[in-house]
Amino acid sequence: MTHPTTQPPQTTQTEVRLIRRPTGMPQADDFEFVTLAIPDLQADQVLIEATHLSLDPYMRGRMDDAKSYAAAVSLGTRMEGGGVGRVIATTSDKFQVGDTVFGMLGWATHAVLPATTLRRLDPTRAPVTTALGVLGMPGFTGWYGLTELGRPKAGETLVVGAATGPVGSMVGQLAKLQGLRVIGIAGGPDKCALAKDTFGFDDCIDHRAYNSVRDLRHAIAQAAPDGVDIYFENIAGKTLDAILPLMNTHGRIPVCGMVSWYNAGALGATSTTQGPDTLPRLWRTILVSRLSVNGFIISDHWDRYGAFLADVAPKLGHGITYHEDITQGLDQIIPAFQRMLLGQNTGKTIVQVA
Amino acid sequence: MTHPTTQPPQTTQTEVRLIRRPTGMPQADDFEFVTLAIPDLQADQVLIEATHLSLDPYMRGRMDDAKSYAAAVSLGTRMEGGGVGRVIATTSDKFQVGDTVFGMLGWATHAVLPATTLRRLDPTRAPVTTALGVLGMPGFTGWYGLTELGRPKAGETLVVGAATGPVGSMVGQLAKLQGLRVIGIAGGPDKCALAKDTFGFDDCIDHRAYNSVRDLRHAIAQAAPDGVDIYFENIAGKTLDAILPLMNTHGRIPVCGMVSWYNAGALGATSTTQGPDTLPRLWRTILVSRLSVNGFIISDHWDRYGAFLADVAPKLGHGITYHEDITQGLDQIIPAFQRMLLGQNTGKTIVQVA
Repeated sequence: MTHPTTQPPQTTQTEVRLIRRPTGMPQADDFEFVTLAIPDLQADQVLIEATHLSLDPYMRGRMDDAKSYAAAVSLGTRMEGGGVGRVIATTSDKFQVGDTVFGMLGWATHAVLPATTLRRLDPTRAPVTTALGVLGMPGFTGWYGLTELGRPKAGETLVVGAATGPVGSMVGQLAKLQGLRVIGIAGGPDKCALAKDTFGFDDCIDHRAYNSVRDLRHAIAQAAPDGVDIYFENIAGKTLDAILPLMNTHGRIPVCGMVSWYNAGALGATSTTQGPDTLPRLWRTILVSRLSVNGFIISDHWDRYGAFLADVAPKLGHGITYHEDITQGLDQIIPAFQRMLLGQNTGKTIVQVA
Repeated sequence: MTHPTTQPPQTTQTEVRLIRRPTGMPQADDFEFVTLAIPDLQADQVLIEATHLSLDPYMRGRMDDAKSYAAAVSLGTRMEGGGVGRVIATTSDKFQVGDTVFGMLGWATHAVLPATTLRRLDPTRAPVTTALGVLGMPGFTGWYGLTELGRPKAGETLVVGAATGPVGSMVGQLAKLQGLRVIGIAGGPDKCALAKDTFGFDDCIDHRAYNSVRDLRHAIAQAAPDGVDIYFENIAGKTLDAILPLMNTHGRIPVCGMVSWYNAGALGATSTTQGPDTLPRLWRTILVSRLSVNGFIISDHWDRYGAFLADVAPKLGHGITYHEDITQGLDQIIPAFQRMLLGQNTGKTIVQVA
């Protein structure tokens, strides 16, 4: 090998380990701080001294054992997370000592990582902390969800929660640039001022100022007189409940988080009966399993009826059959309707009149 | 005009009027049967003698006053609905006496309708009642929802409720033709036998045989060992609750109905607090407003990260700004994380380590 192998100039690091699964809000006792040796570098590894660690709501999910889109952090191991740091030793020729990089450093002062998992940052292009926020995973989340799933159109109205956070502020600003009316939801008058004055939101609702869903709904409705076309969901809870009746036909709800439920116990154990926790479980399933849930009304789509007949009519008796449940007499129409609602019919319900 | 104008050979008709909005299951007293004169035909109208009337679950929704995708049936007027009948008089040259047509006849023995709203049926092509079911609105609903929103792929698993109904049996048979494993949900052993023996479903679960959500879930899970990729939703209730944890990543849920809730009061008055009825209200909103709800996890989409940077990085300071909330010291990471979960941070949360 023609490149020098550097080895650590420093021998110890401190990391934060998850040692107990939190109930509700994580507490200090759920973690321990451990000082340990920095291991020798293997081939194509890089030792990074962390300068900035990212904290993100998704980390709360990693502390739980429930099925999610990524494995839980194992007890006794370093908390996961992205961070920015300086390369202080390397056995890879892809990085040099002194480089600034982004990587999954975890909650720690140092990390040894495969070179393939790191991304070099150019501090002259943008402040390196932007790799954790506006130009990192949160900003990318807002951009992708709005662009691909929100499908914004000029003149529409968008609502996004956590308006001053890195996801919400990206969503709101991108939507403003595309000509939408943008309403933020945030906690407290200072954040609402920030959303409007710094991020250029048309309006911002302080959800703490409204105790009831009804009052919160009224405030959002006043800010969104034409209804809501896109609700970018990252908070759920009271805001979701408030906004549902305000959604316009053909509205879109990209679901990327539900932070108001993360500590409320609402996403906890799987219930075996339908109850108040069914909505949080539905919403979480939509997120974790990346479901597409689409309401549709067939009368919107009669332009496709010809395509349907062309496809299906030739299949009658050749792969497609049908079953009819025919009641005789108009005077029997109400009991026939009742039987259908009770599932006592079998097949297509028809009343023969003449 | 060169074509003869025919006038009614018969002078009276009987119709069923909605005279009271039902609470729960519709009762006979919610309707009245009225015999009235058949009006003279205006230009381009057709008088039809009904032979077959369609009964469909959506009609329950039309009896309520709540916001829906179509106006409620006004009290004192004829119940709406599709039907098949014979033309017995016409002032339109588009139809002849003796033609068999499909139209929105309503619950009645006769209807006078504009010629433009009618569709002529060919009784030699398929039995005319198929225009109400397998080749009509219900079959079209199943075809559209499965094809456009379900996006079926060979080898996947589909679950559909009301399996022997005109929507469910269409969905299941189409999915079988496309190589999916198809599980039906139906009420009672006879319907399950019909689903399997006549419609060719791979399996059918009798939801009446399972009292608890847990047991129903277990039965579905046994029939769907690879999980569920498409849940075609037309019943909701206990089945929705049972199936949620069985949904595979990137699953699809086309929502076209929720008949188990139509009479349960679950879709009733809008609550102002979050409670057990929030899920039914969410599900109904998704249907009525034709919402697209899409869960997404940004780590599925890193292939688009370059496109994001190319779009957004040049906008920093030119339409896109950002705000950071930086805490000093790794020893402060847990309180910083707590503050973020409580919304006490402002902007992107970062811990500065070195």
